[in-house]
Amino acid sequence: MKKAGVAILGLGVVGGGTYQILTEKKEYFKKTQGVDITVECVLEKNLDRARSLGIEEEKIAKSIEEVVCNPNVDIVVEVIGGTGVAKTFVTKALKSGKSVVTSNKELFAKHWPELEAEAKKMNVGLFFEASCVGGVPIIRTLQEGMQANKILSIKGIINGTTNYILTKMAYEGSSYEEALKEAQRLGYAEFDPTADVEGFDATYKLSILSSLAFNKKVCIENVYREGISAVNKKDIAYGKEMGYTLKLLGIGKDTEKGVEVRVHPTFIKNDDPLASVNDSFNAVHLVGDAVGEIMLYGRGAGALPTGSAIVSDVIFAAKHSEFFYAGFENNKKGNKDTKFVSDFTSKYYIRMSVTDKPGVLAKVSSVFAKTNISIFEVRQVSENEGTAQIIVVTHECNESLVKKAIEKFQKLEEVTAVKAVIRME
Amino acid sequence: MKKAGVAILGLGVVGGGTYQILTEKKEYFKKTQGVDITVECVLEKNLDRARSLGIEEEKIAKSIEEVVCNPNVDIVVEVIGGTGVAKTFVTKALKSGKSVVTSNKELFAKHWPELEAEAKKMNVGLFFEASCVGGVPIIRTLQEGMQANKILSIKGIINGTTNYILTKMAYEGSSYEEALKEAQRLGYAEFDPTADVEGFDATYKLSILSSLAFNKKVCIENVYREGISAVNKKDIAYGKEMGYTLKLLGIGKDTEKGVEVRVHPTFIKNDDPLASVNDSFNAVHLVGDAVGEIMLYGRGAGALPTGSAIVSDVIFAAKHSEFFYAGFENNKKGNKDTKFVSDFTSKYYIRMSVTDKPGVLAKVSSVFAKTNISIFEVRQVSENEGTAQIIVVTHECNESLVKKAIEKFQKLEEVTAVKAVIRME
Repeated sequence: MKKAGVAILGLGVVGGGTYQILTEKKEYFKKTQGVDITVECVLEKNLDRARSLGIEEEKIAKSIEEVVCNPNVDIVVEVIGGTGVAKTFVTKALKSGKSVVTSNKELFAKHWPELEAEAKKMNVGLFFEASCVGGVPIIRTLQEGMQANKILSIKGIINGTTNYILTKMAYEGSSYEEALKEAQRLGYAEFDPTADVEGFDATYKLSILSSLAFNKKVCIENVYREGISAVNKKDIAYGKEMGYTLKLLGIGKDTEKGVEVRVHPTFIKNDDPLASVNDSFNAVHLVGDAVGEIMLYGRGAGALPTGSAIVSDVIFAAKHSEFFYAGFENNKKGNKDTKFVSDFTSKYYIRMSVTDKPGVLAKVSSVFAKTNISIFEVRQVSENEGTAQIIVVTHECNESLVKKAIEKFQKLEEVTAVKAVIRME
Repeated sequence: MKKAGVAILGLGVVGGGTYQILTEKKEYFKKTQGVDITVECVLEKNLDRARSLGIEEEKIAKSIEEVVCNPNVDIVVEVIGGTGVAKTFVTKALKSGKSVVTSNKELFAKHWPELEAEAKKMNVGLFFEASCVGGVPIIRTLQEGMQANKILSIKGIINGTTNYILTKMAYEGSSYEEALKEAQRLGYAEFDPTADVEGFDATYKLSILSSLAFNKKVCIENVYREGISAVNKKDIAYGKEMGYTLKLLGIGKDTEKGVEVRVHPTFIKNDDPLASVNDSFNAVHLVGDAVGEIMLYGRGAGALPTGSAIVSDVIFAAKHSEFFYAGFENNKKGNKDTKFVSDFTSKYYIRMSVTDKPGVLAKVSSVFAKTNISIFEVRQVSENEGTAQIIVVTHECNESLVKKAIEKFQKLEEVTAVKAVIRME
């Protein structure tokens, strides 16, 4: 039977879940997978945390050197997060000829090329299933299930925190602040929620996923990013009335014009399969030229779901000696021949506060007409105190045209403020 | 660069799609996958079909011997179907040291153990992603994405033909016969639709999927099977009113009592993620003890979706020299230590025609009470000519109790007929 020794760096939520699965299911994996996996050591500065998991004192390493010099360790699991020590430790592990399994999307989105170069040099594996969409095997699917396809588009709810917040706003009418507070109380959002709510986390994941999907390097700098902190519950409610659900989507498209990658709040139709993906669930929708539409759905985070992804990588690393590397030139700065589209086209939901008097709608409409933006639907809703809301849903048009129109609206006396500009899929 | 030669046995819809993908994307696969795949030969008795695909005369083999003796052929793709020549050909290919990729669920469900034994003996690969749920990478997910989990349940819409028919009955109010005729016209159903509509196809797939999911051999004889040919559009309509959607589900559960595997028409709640899987789309829902819920969705059939699955297997076979074999004792008769549950529990939808006079509902209710079946919901709908429909939705109860109750109803004077008994999830 094949044997493998594992070291776990970091015993936070995910590290703890991984330790639990690997130890509790040791016999099960011997039986079902034909591999005997032993956690040889852990590295965690909070010793109490290590002890509370029942880890024997002699298995608690004192330094990364102790880990990478341990000849019984074949696979190093990095679940520390961030790009500081995590990067140093992963690099040392690879240089020492250990395969690495990581859940660290930030590290991966920022330093995949260097790490992969080290892995290739040492002929070891570099696994990152857990870095994107938790327990959902999207990386494996892109690497080993979709090879026959040119992937045309990828669309996903790839951040659970923001999906929880938006679901709460939609179903309970909470404000963004209230929903965020509740997410923090439940442990779905961090004390400093910036990485999630401003879309950084989704951007890391989208850069990894769309690189694999399109077989072209997509750096995080290529991804347009807009978070949900400015989302107003009014727009979620208006959208609902009009048949749309608001989600923070990661969108990637590979078209003749180039690659288009963006993370932003997006209205989708209520009958879109992504619209019913609620709470902290995640889902990724792919279109391949052979397979057509495919969707994967599941938990994007949590000790055991993410642990499940890590352990599937560990088992793969233990069973196989041939590894996957990117099927494209994995350059830090991207590939010279990849064009990116920044002035993409989309449909838009635009809401503005206006003074409630005759002729306003005509003026607003005329701005759209002059900017060459064709209107799909308009609503005007009167409010108190002589103000009204005008909501316009446009047909497909260029982002740059919308920006021009917004500038014009801001100069119109009758328009108090442009309150929301939300892209639609 | 790794090179691989492929032979395709059978040039029907799927064989043609596979040939198309492999030839049109030869350069793409060299670039993105680092493998150079050549279709070395095909075996197809309809020579015109081969020629219409533009296959050169010298690549059209005259016999299986010519294929398996061709030293340039590394991988044999079997897309003939059935268990006749397909079995002979696949066995010859394996014995000749070729890896085999097949889309043949019947062959696989019936002869997996012998085929795997041959493959193991020769240390070649035996791939069957395309045998279940077309382009959806469910086999790969079970083999390489879910290893960390004990899978607790699998539930799926795994036959596109029946899903198309049931969708049409639900949305257009068609009768079963009308919907079947339309499915045949569109090529979704065969001239002899038995394998699909009577649930045989789904049974083959469920036996394969639940074997992999539960790491226990599940033979087709272990699967309870009931098709959709007796489904009445009235029950779809009543169910809709009550908040349920009718689907032909393959259901597998691994509980303390044993393994439970069944294919039958099933009412699911309208907000179940499977309820919105319509037309010829397929989906599989899994629950793992670590990962929680997961769902995969996509096209279950068709030249290119199934071709996509086959080609992903071909590429895997071309890149790797370590193969997956079942993680359980792959016996033809199943494993001695696996218990199966036949008297499973479920909720039930029961409709009966009754004479429309006072006291009928009381009599019907009293039969349920005496049989110890607890009722969740009852409807009585009067019809013309002194008859009425009584619809009862039960709480969870044993199948055997329901059978007892049905026998009693059939003896009741007031019950003209028990029209439908449909399990619910």
